[in-house]
Amino acid sequence: MSDKRPPGAPERANTAVGERADALCDAALAGDRRSLARLLTAVENRTPLAEAALRRLYPMAGRAQLIGITGPPGAGKSTLVAALIAELRRADRPVAVVAVDPSSPITGGAVLGDRVRMQAYAADPDVFIRSMASRGHSGGLSSATTAAAAVFDAVGFDVVLIETVGTGQSEVEVAATADTTVVVEAPEMGDEIQAIKAGLLEVADLIVVNKGDKPGAHRTAGQLRAMLTGATPRGARLGWPTPKEPEILVATAATGEGVAELLAAIDRHRNTTRGSDGDAVRIVRAEAQVWAVLSDRLHEQLRLIEGPMDGAAQGALAGTETPAGELIRAVAAHQLDPYAAADCLLALFMGRGSLLD
Amino acid sequence: MSDKRPPGAPERANTAVGERADALCDAALAGDRRSLARLLTAVENRTPLAEAALRRLYPMAGRAQLIGITGPPGAGKSTLVAALIAELRRADRPVAVVAVDPSSPITGGAVLGDRVRMQAYAADPDVFIRSMASRGHSGGLSSATTAAAAVFDAVGFDVVLIETVGTGQSEVEVAATADTTVVVEAPEMGDEIQAIKAGLLEVADLIVVNKGDKPGAHRTAGQLRAMLTGATPRGARLGWPTPKEPEILVATAATGEGVAELLAAIDRHRNTTRGSDGDAVRIVRAEAQVWAVLSDRLHEQLRLIEGPMDGAAQGALAGTETPAGELIRAVAAHQLDPYAAADCLLALFMGRGSLLD
Repeated sequence: MSDKRPPGAPERANTAVGERADALCDAALAGDRRSLARLLTAVENRTPLAEAALRRLYPMAGRAQLIGITGPPGAGKSTLVAALIAELRRADRPVAVVAVDPSSPITGGAVLGDRVRMQAYAADPDVFIRSMASRGHSGGLSSATTAAAAVFDAVGFDVVLIETVGTGQSEVEVAATADTTVVVEAPEMGDEIQAIKAGLLEVADLIVVNKGDKPGAHRTAGQLRAMLTGATPRGARLGWPTPKEPEILVATAATGEGVAELLAAIDRHRNTTRGSDGDAVRIVRAEAQVWAVLSDRLHEQLRLIEGPMDGAAQGALAGTETPAGELIRAVAAHQLDPYAAADCLLALFMGRGSLLD
Repeated sequence: MSDKRPPGAPERANTAVGERADALCDAALAGDRRSLARLLTAVENRTPLAEAALRRLYPMAGRAQLIGITGPPGAGKSTLVAALIAELRRADRPVAVVAVDPSSPITGGAVLGDRVRMQAYAADPDVFIRSMASRGHSGGLSSATTAAAAVFDAVGFDVVLIETVGTGQSEVEVAATADTTVVVEAPEMGDEIQAIKAGLLEVADLIVVNKGDKPGAHRTAGQLRAMLTGATPRGARLGWPTPKEPEILVATAATGEGVAELLAAIDRHRNTTRGSDGDAVRIVRAEAQVWAVLSDRLHEQLRLIEGPMDGAAQGALAGTETPAGELIRAVAAHQLDPYAAADCLLALFMGRGSLLD
């Protein structure tokens, strides 16, 4: 492959990278946390090492239970995740957390206290909490978190909790790639939060009204039950066996009340959906992962389409003297519509036909 | 093209669709609001009619000023948008709004009061407010809003405000496709909102602290100023001329105080960034649009890759008896890694080579 690579093409996987990936995988599989952390960083940044490592680890994954935890700001997701960790550890189950962090990698990083939370379990080798920035994932945030979950899965974490602030489309999708998606609500929130809450319900396999000790909690649960009566649950829309309506629970994460029941409901949900005809949610997840890789590959190829003007030019799609860059500039100037430009690029791409040479 | 289309392939644009698109475009260009609304619905749902209409309208667009308005829940974005509309109408500028609605199309739809806001301007032909659901955009939310903005632009709206709840990656990206992105903040919010605020700053061309009459407003502005000192503004990262730091203003949308100044700052920002070497933000926007179309085309092609088992099968990528479906299922079962599956699909795709026949 490498001898036919166009000049300037990024190396996809060379031997040195493969060896480093193997060494890190071996160490992580043997329980080395620093190696695990480095693998996760590679996965988050989509480096060539990540590809080599994931190809190695992917066949070892597939056993872990993925639980998505999402909800509006202020619903108490972090507290609930902490309570779930405690509950899972009581049952001696190893647990990893991928916490999607809405703050920016540019302006500062995690302010959600994940570092602090991590410290509480620093001495427990069977707990690993990892923050992941929500920005800058070319292949999509859900592909990055799914890949991180596969790493945790391969190295033996039995449960992977994926925590997102459920206020954005991508963030909600992330939680929805899990085997079971838990939407955390809280009593009494403002109007806009109200709208966000409504938007979340469509991905919920289970709903937990947190802060159950607050006055409005049971009323909120009742309202949610009324909203959901007659709604088609996510599983049914995706065509997999599923309870008729999402179960609605009340819990108080801060005291731990109701958390064991929540975990039991999560396990019950998982047992309902899997089995019969293969896990439909896992097929959806696999499709998203494959598409993310395809999309990366195609982007890379399109960036490499070179023009007669400058045979060695390579750079971002726009702003270069490649045909791709010219097409983009013509679209920006409204001299060409995006459909015509896309069809030109496809023609160039198909004509090139050298991707897998 | 049609005679070579594989069986079951969706019709991309036939004559009847083209004629209906032309009729709607003619009517919308002549000022008919119902036709405009129907075009926007087609664009939101990415129907074949939308493609035909956009191809027709795109060359007529490119003049409107796109202003992104984003911010955390509760910052008062809707009130600010209303105040901006009032200010723009005072200057006799036609204004359209694309309001991205975080609530779900399944569980209920707009609860943000856009319908109510719309009614206030029902008698003004130069104001048009359109809600758009944040879910279910295969080509990406920002491509849907950009396409809607192009329609408004083509039919003569001078300013298009794009309003999103700035709490999700996609939603922030949407606002960031505008010529000028305004981040709305408000004094005194909870911890998690604090993190979201920090995440928003990276896309801000301008920051407005709303609810300027509240005690903490000027302190919040000061804190933001401190956070941003030394940070590289978005424009500089994208390589276009830009002020050194985002301007920070204080306004009270509810009373209108500071709104004229905000609009002046927006215009000032636009004049700084455009000119010199073409609008860099427009090139970024064009690239995203072209990629969205490409991505749609490729998805469609991949779904059509047919196997020897069932020559007529066509359906979603997974769950079908096509090679694509089989590959996805193998990935779901962890018998194959996503990279290997993607490379197989690419090989099938390249081998097919019939896309533009």
